[in-house]
Amino acid sequence: MQAVCLRQVPQGMPQAQDFELRQLPLPLIGDGQLRVQVQWLSLDPFLRAQLGGRYAVPCPPLGSIVPGYGIGTVVEDRSGRFQPGDVVAGMTGWAEFAAMEANAASLIDAALAPVSTAVGVLGVPGLTAWAGVRRILQPKAGQTILVSTAAGAVGSVVGQLCKAAGCRVVGIAGSAQKCAIVTDEFGFDACVSYRDADFVASLRAACPDGIDGYFDNVGGAVLEAALSLLRLHARVVLCGLSDQYNRAERPAGPNLGPVIGARARLEGLVVYDHLGDFAQCRSELAQMIAAGTLRYREHIHDGLASAPAGFIGLLNGDNLGKALVRL
Amino acid sequence: MQAVCLRQVPQGMPQAQDFELRQLPLPLIGDGQLRVQVQWLSLDPFLRAQLGGRYAVPCPPLGSIVPGYGIGTVVEDRSGRFQPGDVVAGMTGWAEFAAMEANAASLIDAALAPVSTAVGVLGVPGLTAWAGVRRILQPKAGQTILVSTAAGAVGSVVGQLCKAAGCRVVGIAGSAQKCAIVTDEFGFDACVSYRDADFVASLRAACPDGIDGYFDNVGGAVLEAALSLLRLHARVVLCGLSDQYNRAERPAGPNLGPVIGARARLEGLVVYDHLGDFAQCRSELAQMIAAGTLRYREHIHDGLASAPAGFIGLLNGDNLGKALVRL
Repeated sequence: MQAVCLRQVPQGMPQAQDFELRQLPLPLIGDGQLRVQVQWLSLDPFLRAQLGGRYAVPCPPLGSIVPGYGIGTVVEDRSGRFQPGDVVAGMTGWAEFAAMEANAASLIDAALAPVSTAVGVLGVPGLTAWAGVRRILQPKAGQTILVSTAAGAVGSVVGQLCKAAGCRVVGIAGSAQKCAIVTDEFGFDACVSYRDADFVASLRAACPDGIDGYFDNVGGAVLEAALSLLRLHARVVLCGLSDQYNRAERPAGPNLGPVIGARARLEGLVVYDHLGDFAQCRSELAQMIAAGTLRYREHIHDGLASAPAGFIGLLNGDNLGKALVRL
Repeated sequence: MQAVCLRQVPQGMPQAQDFELRQLPLPLIGDGQLRVQVQWLSLDPFLRAQLGGRYAVPCPPLGSIVPGYGIGTVVEDRSGRFQPGDVVAGMTGWAEFAAMEANAASLIDAALAPVSTAVGVLGVPGLTAWAGVRRILQPKAGQTILVSTAAGAVGSVVGQLCKAAGCRVVGIAGSAQKCAIVTDEFGFDACVSYRDADFVASLRAACPDGIDGYFDNVGGAVLEAALSLLRLHARVVLCGLSDQYNRAERPAGPNLGPVIGARARLEGLVVYDHLGDFAQCRSELAQMIAAGTLRYREHIHDGLASAPAGFIGLLNGDNLGKALVRL
């Protein structure tokens, strides 16, 4: 089978030569395991943190298959829990076939929505958004909520959940094209590009009364700008630091003075704490999709060999929607 | 009467020549007001923020009396609410006599504790500590709590309240002498000086299992070091930024990565939100003082003319205990 392996640990922005397409034997499976033929790979920013040794799970050894979420069809089951033909999601890695522990694989209901959504709007990104909104932001009708990476798999769901709660929702994204998607397709009230020279002034103009909540996936200057807009008792979900994933040194953070003045609450969110709510989350989001009140977008790369370029594009902000590789 | 007036707005660390001792006429009072003979002035770090225009209350005009809390004896009452001889606390400013609005003056119970405590352990510093501990830190027995400015009027009370709740309490102060006071007099389990070259290593050694709560009055490098020790679901009270009161530019803040990993909560505290709890706070703290379980320390400067030097010493960290001027 083909697999994409880690050739060297990326320094700064990952490059194509950090990865290597190799021919490997099919993985063996033992009792309690499944062999899965991979259909979809999920490309996620946290992989960059993991490759840099800044993640809960360590960087894999050089030469091994690049880790990552995927979706595949069961071709052999030695657990007694799945049938050949079942579609499952889990840590497949970047390969055509994967050996998975049955208890780490989740069955995908293909009737619920297209199976690719299991790593996007109905997967961990959807759960991240849902947990941040329900557990920390707790938006109320009439409030203004600001959302970073608003065109992405997490941010687009955050904003739509807050819209459904009756909020005014403002997005931050990385280009005029993304901002157009955020407002026209995801229904945000406004969107500002952090790459604009007048970003801070534009953000302030889009949030003239400040913000009651902010969902941060970025850190750095974007978080600093958001903190300057905090209203009394605002809540901030600290969920990611994409601003620093590609940097050798961890840059300084924002000055926290405005947090005191606003009596604001900043709270760290790690989605894996909320896996117990996955069924509830998935059911709510699927109902919203069926009702037409939750939209999502996929940016599909074709073929396993396109995974490195797709991942690099994701880190550059080139993707429009949840980044996937279709095998 | 004598008064200390603002001669120029301090740039960086305040200097003696920023202030001026002047002879002024006694203040006139109208209906609803009192004339008070000032006995005690409270020297507080927030005054530096106010003089720099970084506070809820603006910097007073040049030439006017330096604002500040004080305690005095009522010499004339035109409100019908006080008797001559009553002791009251409020915004007296740095002067021998003050005209105060009766509804902004609070009667001090001289039987409860020495009246000077009304601007210290039983005053706004005590309320700040109490509100931060009761409302945000919510310490539980067996937890480790870290406290900045541990020898000061706020930090010393924070630590003793957390000790009373059964916590292990570690302080941060600015000298070996202060650290000795923090452990020997206030009963903290350990104390580390942020001026030591090996501060971060010492702090880590004093908190080998990390921290469940942190009370920050400092910001900057001290907050950064504390964030590196956060345990899961730790809480951080953001209450002051003494690291930056004397700087022209607001420096960058700490990197917030550890907040995500720890699922920690950082929350801004402004003591004036909790004035409604002052009676309850004062009663609890006074009982602890009477029972010998809450200690406090005062650093007394004698004479109105000593106020500028006392204030500068406070900002330099020279004081040992709540800084007061005795008139």
